[in-house]
Amino acid sequence: MQVSLAELLKAFGIGAAAVTLGVEWVDWLARRLSLRRGARGPLKEVLFFPSPSACVEHLYAPAGALSCSCPLPHGVDTPFARLLGHLLSAGATLDLCVFSFSNASLSRAVLLLHSRGVAVRVITDREYMTIVGSQIGTLRRAGICVRHELSNAVHMHHKFVLVDGKKLLTGSLNWTVTAVQSNKENVLVTEDPDLVGPYQEEFCRLWEASDPTSQNQSDCHQGTAGSQ
Amino acid sequence: MQVSLAELLKAFGIGAAAVTLGVEWVDWLARRLSLRRGARGPLKEVLFFPSPSACVEHLYAPAGALSCSCPLPHGVDTPFARLLGHLLSAGATLDLCVFSFSNASLSRAVLLLHSRGVAVRVITDREYMTIVGSQIGTLRRAGICVRHELSNAVHMHHKFVLVDGKKLLTGSLNWTVTAVQSNKENVLVTEDPDLVGPYQEEFCRLWEASDPTSQNQSDCHQGTAGSQ
Repeated sequence: MQVSLAELLKAFGIGAAAVTLGVEWVDWLARRLSLRRGARGPLKEVLFFPSPSACVEHLYAPAGALSCSCPLPHGVDTPFARLLGHLLSAGATLDLCVFSFSNASLSRAVLLLHSRGVAVRVITDREYMTIVGSQIGTLRRAGICVRHELSNAVHMHHKFVLVDGKKLLTGSLNWTVTAVQSNKENVLVTEDPDLVGPYQEEFCRLWEASDPTSQNQSDCHQGTAGSQ
Repeated sequence: MQVSLAELLKAFGIGAAAVTLGVEWVDWLARRLSLRRGARGPLKEVLFFPSPSACVEHLYAPAGALSCSCPLPHGVDTPFARLLGHLLSAGATLDLCVFSFSNASLSRAVLLLHSRGVAVRVITDREYMTIVGSQIGTLRRAGICVRHELSNAVHMHHKFVLVDGKKLLTGSLNWTVTAVQSNKENVLVTEDPDLVGPYQEEFCRLWEASDPTSQNQSDCHQGTAGSQ
């Protein structure tokens, strides 16, 4: 069967249109899946401190609560407000591994999450947990699981937190007022599973290694078992 | 002009083949550009400490140098060896921002880079730079630019380093022997420009803010000007 030139041109015309549509469709799909260079994938953010003082009352309050009348600036998007916002976004678990914890505003956030039913686990340094102003006692009295290094020889010097096992905040920032308001500090925030994963595993290793009962039968990922 | 069923089928056949080829081509292109989920993009790595003791002599030596006969284990890929390897990969610049620096092995690496012509800049804490064992004096005597916070009120508490302005190492690890060999610490390594960029800008901000001459005319990104 012979094919005329007109038929060939028609076929190529339809073919070209099909290729164009195909490419457009794959391009749309790539954008939807965040595979293009323009879409950078999972959340990543860097916060630098010291943070300017500003009211963060609205972050603790339920939606629609009355606005705060304190004298601090309101509606300012500070690094500390962003840090608090990330923490308070936890809906299921909060795994905190921090050397020094004496910041009452951060303690309030952790207590609020605990009261909401979020499974909170804290690993801290054996020596620094007893310094003046430490919030560890307050957390324990509220029923939050806190563990510390069993050895005297080392410091648990990490400063990272995992929100719902999916968001990592890590850096130089201890959870103290001086760190937030005075020091030069950094906190890197990421949801990249290639980075979140190793920190979650490290948390689990430390949690189990810091079990004072040494009856290490709990499933670390459940976030419910632990010493207080 | 009428189109027969045979012509229509032919046109659809060619169109379908064209779509398939188009999709395959875009898929291949996506893989080439590392846009698929399987290809994770730029380097990312997490190092946890304490690091087991092992010989790292080969990392300082030029290629082909004689092997070391020290009693430490050889050929072990420890977190500290990886940290050193990343630092010694610097070919042009090393921007170090670290609270406490007393680790002689890390000091040796920085001095080696300086001797190779790498432009090294160091920002450190005003108070901790004078503690016993601090390497800051050694670096300065070798001609390396070191600056510190001009204010007494705050600590420069960062622990990050930028290698050639493209690779970031950041975490909880101070550059001390205790941090490397005893403490629970972490260092996140990344070449993601979305993370490297903010830290490079922070380094430049601090470098300029710590200029004791306050004649802030240098181009921070050149890595050549600075006080000693």
